Amino acid sequence: MVHETVTMEGHLIDSDILRRAFARIVEGGGEFEVEEFRVGKRNDDASFVKLSVTAADAGALDSILEDLNYLGAATVVADAQFAPAEADGILPDEFYSTTNYDTFVRLEGRWEPVRDQRMDCALVLREGAPSCVKQGQVTKGEPVVLRGPGIRVKPPERSRDFSVFGFMSNDISAEINKGIVISGAAREMRRTRDEGGKIVVVAGPAIVHSGGDAPLARLVRDGWIDVLLTGNAFATHDLEKSILKTSLGVCQMSGRAMEGGSRNHLWAINAVNRKGGIRPAVESGLVTSGVMYEAVKKGITCVLAGSIRDDGPLKDVVTDVVAAQKAYVEALRGAGMCLMLASALHSIAVGNLLPARVRTVCVDMTESVPVKLSNRGTMQAIGLVTDVGFFLERLEAELTRANA
Amino acid sequence: MVHETVTMEGHLIDSDILRRAFARIVEGGGEFEVEEFRVGKRNDDASFVKLSVTAADAGALDSILEDLNYLGAATVVADAQFAPAEADGILPDEFYSTTNYDTFVRLEGRWEPVRDQRMDCALVLREGAPSCVKQGQVTKGEPVVLRGPGIRVKPPERSRDFSVFGFMSNDISAEINKGIVISGAAREMRRTRDEGGKIVVVAGPAIVHSGGDAPLARLVRDGWIDVLLTGNAFATHDLEKSILKTSLGVCQMSGRAMEGGSRNHLWAINAVNRKGGIRPAVESGLVTSGVMYEAVKKGITCVLAGSIRDDGPLKDVVTDVVAAQKAYVEALRGAGMCLMLASALHSIAVGNLLPARVRTVCVDMTESVPVKLSNRGTMQAIGLVTDVGFFLERLEAELTRANA
Amino acid sequence: MVHETVTMEGHLIDSDILRRAFARIVEGGGEFEVEEFRVGKRNDDASFVKLSVTAADAGALDSILEDLNYLGAATVVADAQFAPAEADGILPDEFYSTTNYDTFVRLEGRWEPVRDQRMDCALVLREGAPSCVKQGQVTKGEPVVLRGPGIRVKPPERSRDFSVFGFMSNDISAEINKGIVISGAAREMRRTRDEGGKIVVVAGPAIVHSGGDAPLARLVRDGWIDVLLTGNAFATHDLEKSILKTSLGVCQMSGRAMEGGSRNHLWAINAVNRKGGIRPAVESGLVTSGVMYEAVKKGITCVLAGSIRDDGPLKDVVTDVVAAQKAYVEALRGAGMCLMLASALHSIAVGNLLPARVRTVCVDMTESVPVKLSNRGTMQAIGLVTDVGFFLERLEAELTRANA
Amino acid sequence: MVHETVTMEGHLIDSDILRRAFARIVEGGGEFEVEEFRVGKRNDDASFVKLSVTAADAGALDSILEDLNYLGAATVVADAQFAPAEADGILPDEFYSTTNYDTFVRLEGRWEPVRDQRMDCALVLREGAPSCVKQGQVTKGEPVVLRGPGIRVKPPERSRDFSVFGFMSNDISAEINKGIVISGAAREMRRTRDEGGKIVVVAGPAIVHSGGDAPLARLVRDGWIDVLLTGNAFATHDLEKSILKTSLGVCQMSGRAMEGGSRNHLWAINAVNRKGGIRPAVESGLVTSGVMYEAVKKGITCVLAGSIRDDGPLKDVVTDVVAAQKAYVEALRGAGMCLMLASALHSIAVGNLLPARVRTVCVDMTESVPVKLSNRGTMQAIGLVTDVGFFLERLEAELTRANA
Repeated sequence: MVHETVTMEGHLIDSDILRRAFARIVEGGGEFEVEEFRVGKRNDDASFVKLSVTAADAGALDSILEDLNYLGAATVVADAQFAPAEADGILPDEFYSTTNYDTFVRLEGRWEPVRDQRMDCALVLREGAPSCVKQGQVTKGEPVVLRGPGIRVKPPERSRDFSVFGFMSNDISAEINKGIVISGAAREMRRTRDEGGKIVVVAGPAIVHSGGDAPLARLVRDGWIDVLLTGNAFATHDLEKSILKTSLGVCQMSGRAMEGGSRNHLWAINAVNRKGGIRPAVESGLVTSGVMYEAVKKGITCVLAGSIRDDGPLKDVVTDVVAAQKAYVEALRGAGMCLMLASALHSIAVGNLLPARVRTVCVDMTESVPVKLSNRGTMQAIGLVTDVGFFLERLEAELTRANA
Repeated sequence: MVHETVTMEGHLIDSDILRRAFARIVEGGGEFEVEEFRVGKRNDDASFVKLSVTAADAGALDSILEDLNYLGAATVVADAQFAPAEADGILPDEFYSTTNYDTFVRLEGRWEPVRDQRMDCALVLREGAPSCVKQGQVTKGEPVVLRGPGIRVKPPERSRDFSVFGFMSNDISAEINKGIVISGAAREMRRTRDEGGKIVVVAGPAIVHSGGDAPLARLVRDGWIDVLLTGNAFATHDLEKSILKTSLGVCQMSGRAMEGGSRNHLWAINAVNRKGGIRPAVESGLVTSGVMYEAVKKGITCVLAGSIRDDGPLKDVVTDVVAAQKAYVEALRGAGMCLMLASALHSIAVGNLLPARVRTVCVDMTESVPVKLSNRGTMQAIGLVTDVGFFLERLEAELTRANA
Repeated sequence: MVHETVTMEGHLIDSDILRRAFARIVEGGGEFEVEEFRVGKRNDDASFVKLSVTAADAGALDSILEDLNYLGAATVVADAQFAPAEADGILPDEFYSTTNYDTFVRLEGRWEPVRDQRMDCALVLREGAPSCVKQGQVTKGEPVVLRGPGIRVKPPERSRDFSVFGFMSNDISAEINKGIVISGAAREMRRTRDEGGKIVVVAGPAIVHSGGDAPLARLVRDGWIDVLLTGNAFATHDLEKSILKTSLGVCQMSGRAMEGGSRNHLWAINAVNRKGGIRPAVESGLVTSGVMYEAVKKGITCVLAGSIRDDGPLKDVVTDVVAAQKAYVEALRGAGMCLMLASALHSIAVGNLLPARVRTVCVDMTESVPVKLSNRGTMQAIGLVTDVGFFLERLEAELTRANA
Repeated sequence: MVHETVTMEGHLIDSDILRRAFARIVEGGGEFEVEEFRVGKRNDDASFVKLSVTAADAGALDSILEDLNYLGAATVVADAQFAPAEADGILPDEFYSTTNYDTFVRLEGRWEPVRDQRMDCALVLREGAPSCVKQGQVTKGEPVVLRGPGIRVKPPERSRDFSVFGFMSNDISAEINKGIVISGAAREMRRTRDEGGKIVVVAGPAIVHSGGDAPLARLVRDGWIDVLLTGNAFATHDLEKSILKTSLGVCQMSGRAMEGGSRNHLWAINAVNRKGGIRPAVESGLVTSGVMYEAVKKGITCVLAGSIRDDGPLKDVVTDVVAAQKAYVEALRGAGMCLMLASALHSIAVGNLLPARVRTVCVDMTESVPVKLSNRGTMQAIGLVTDVGFFLERLEAELTRANA
């Protein structure tokens, strides 16, 4: 039997960390003894625990300690260890794999915060700072942080305030009073803006089918949205609606696509690409309304990521998915809040790129997208099961009322 | 400002009780101070906490204390208070409303366990014992427990063992390795049988569409199922398959219902009802295979609850839903485990009637049924998102292998 | 080889009848030869076909002819044949099983229309008229129509007009422009009202979660709804919201149910039942707003059908499901349009009771409810996949605009 | 008023073409008169119709005629018209947009079949043959077919045979007897193999979660699969399972991902990429089992398309989505059958690339994927709502039994 002592500090109970730590020890075949425990006396006080962990052998103990480390536990205090990347895109086997929790690396006795925090990356020393880098983008010889000492993780703490985000995180609210969630989201948007954080929208094409494009365009126009992450389909639907006002490629009687009706979809792409892309299409007067129009006019950041389903695509689309991920990461710098609207593909992609501290709402017609997000580690996302058109109309009403 | 001191004891951290207590206080507009906290030192030790709770006025404090009471907190120790039911089915307004957690009522200084524990009932003194009774079934003058002192709740504690039920409760496992959940369910079935608990199956008609009727019939035959709770549709599909072997009301070429093809469905009901019901239909040789056949042969408890969707119905169906609820409650006495298989209606109904301590697996094609169960308080249910035919085939294989 | 000649008349092509007839013959192992075909020359003309059908033996031919009869084909013209019901609820084995298509029975040389047309019933001669009667409600000795001659079915014909119902029937419109479907539904409501047909709403509890109760209450108040078919849960949510205005059983901060929070749900039932039911609760001033309030004030027909999931239930609930089906059938007499709103259970129940000619829209969050309706024969239902709160807000706006 | 005469020939009734033609005319605001109609007398005979179509003006008539052309109607017989592409990726505005139906272009009096038939492409003359080319891949000056004369479309005809594909196309079979669909799929696989067509599998990662990887690997090994179209996630799950046998990145007790557990996922990618990709990883002995292993051993065509969600990615992944589409198109040449297994993204992508004549089965846990496929024009896909693990186990059993 081997054992080790670890300490943890923070809102260990409110943030559900102590329970998970106990569970990991037992799951890992270990036992624990609480050597010391100081609970935060009042609402705002942090707690502290010192645990003695015992396991059958060193391998089992190491595995438990690694798990606890991911929950913020500190063991031996020492500088982080590094090994060079073997080749471009090839890590040393003992690489440390990141979570989306804020992480610190100990370099020469100081705890340095990690840049571009997100899950499933290597930690690489770049320009002197530990940085999250996807394994495929590590270059030969770069120093890669190894598993073991010198890494500290700070899981997000649930705030004890009254916001929807304090209490609802990680719940999927199919049957909840939706008005309460939507007004909570509006409150967080105002708070984020006051704090100087960026508000990011991840947009799927169902926004257009549901008529949510009109309120979303107004939110962009009125300065509520800083970043728009989407793909070719959403942008094309929105542009087609602006350019081909009366026909839209659907029969105006039946509301259904006509035989060969996706011609209008292709026609819109052709017309925009002939101008040279979305911005020149707006500047030339071809496009005069819609979400993309307002985004160009307002000058917000837009990234269109390619997918294998795409028609066209529009010239603005980043067709290489590795490049598109990089562009998304750039755009997400400084994000304080994220609205994921009716796009499984892009929502999960953005969830992979966001630090857990960013307040996130995922709106979709089924429970499956928020459940998937949560299973993949984007546990901060509040799932709201509703029609995205409904959400955007109500959200705009909340934000307008609040401004009045 | 008013305040009150409460104590809580048990696996407060593992069972996620302390976190929820803190949250309820803050949600209710109160504050707390931890006066004393003793954490269980080892895996099996209970913890103890003494909290001082403060709120702005007596009303807010009472509301918080009631919430904490539902989480197992003890405040003033005194006997429970009663008032008589005003009329048949009419409670005094201050009635206590139950959860599905084990509950105790203090009568003349002794803590008496509640009978037929389930959620959303009144607590009535019947034959000297506090009992969960639906409000509609309380009779005039019966003593009804009021909100306030003398009620103690014991939330279920997560076991720290390695079973699937210890760690997975309340997760919805759409993307999990399904084999692990199914073998966990098989393990729990064996354990339940060893402990003398009953194994209950709640069955929906999709079992027959998926070919799960064959393995389910064998599980009944081999003594794995003690109680079958279902409705008219499942039983009729199963009986039609037994009686009308070659036709089944679906075209054998296309697999689709024929024009007028539900005639066979009605024909099977007619044939069984002519014999006088399912048992005589089996005894007379009309029905010679299937789940209902094995259930009659084995003599297990079956209850068929009526629904407004029913054809027929079969004579065995309890068409009054209040009577059907009573029959389900009777059948659930002694339940140790519950498999909810592809029936939203009956699964939620049974969730309402089950104490939270009963190990429960809910198998359905979408996340929405387990999410609904959890939202309605059946938080012990493990959701497995898969095809019920697949689940039953694999479950049978696990149980057969284990017996070998 | 045996053969028989059949004729069919009507919009055989527009209504997709000829295609299905050809398919049934080949599925049934037969062959056909078109002896005569006259296509309707213009949009409004009927077509006529005379087919010679050949099969290997008399049994196969009979089976094909029965299928064709369900599609409206006429073969030998003769009076219908009858046999008496063997006992209460027991039919002769050769009973004819109905569809939801308009059906006529030949009695002494005259084709008599069937009363209370709906699917999966026996045809019984009552008060001289052929009537759809559920098998369980046939009494001993009543004359039951047998399979064979003297039955004529008239499948619904797709209108060639521009309404949403003309072209969209049987499509599930997850990605359609929802505004077009909703304005089509509003247009049909006006048309139904002009024609003197009743507008029926089938309501599920998600209407309240989504905030759709407010527009629905206004639609009832303004005379747009003639019949409300629902259950205990919807009515209780609506009444609780009216009676317990400020609390509602959910935490107003977080929007989630509180520990023991369904007490308010039970409390509302208790308060209404103490008054003697919903009408006295409205008349006494206990209930002063909401859908049930407006329904009582307007005097529209409401039926609350019981289910095994029910709390309480409210005194107004018909707890026997057979009695509830009868009450639904009564209420559906004269229905011209049906809105099925967010209730799988009640929507499928009502689909079983409606003739196919009633224009039907089914609004639900997933494709599965409209798919199930269609699989069970309610093929006239247009499925709209959206949030019911959204649908009701937009529908009210359409109806209000149109009135202005 | 203007009018035009058109003719159509083929299985106009069985294939539901005449009904759709009538509907399009009325939807488009026109009227028609049937000048001549000859129905196919027996099961195998083609029908012929000559319609006079009238509309209010030339624009409306042209729009109707274009719709009818997409349904196979012939009007004026003349050579196709061309205009050169304006620039790389920029079409002339009057370009013809393709469907997934077999299409012919009239060049100097001869009807030439179109190469690489798929939807939403331009028709370009390449190497003398009319070819489907995505708009982005047309190069400056290439001759592009314009809307109007010289294009003939041949909608797929429903075969009147007994196969599952003859009758079930375009149905979504949530509640159908699944065994019948699966045995139908097996029968079609054998038929496709006998005819020399390729069998294509589109694979999503849920196959691994459901344990479907084992039967799929055996199907590859035994020569049932010719082409595997998938992405980074499926391949990585499969490789991780092969390489890291005992751990798999999920806790073997609970079946859930561990804190930081996706490290194993990244580790597997790192190990395979270090070898240089999947093939060298197999050849070096690193990978010794699984679907990718069998695919390499058997030498079947595999394409891994990148997505913005990808970890890694594996070196084998085509990260540019335009290049990935091209690789999919190459791989789909000669496809006779396609199994789409639990991947919304790749299934819809492949649906966009497949001619409608390819027999297609789409297996998914919800109705929404098959509904989306159908809405987007992949109307030949039979939707089977079940767990993909279940499907693959049963499919293998069917194929094995049939071989015995």
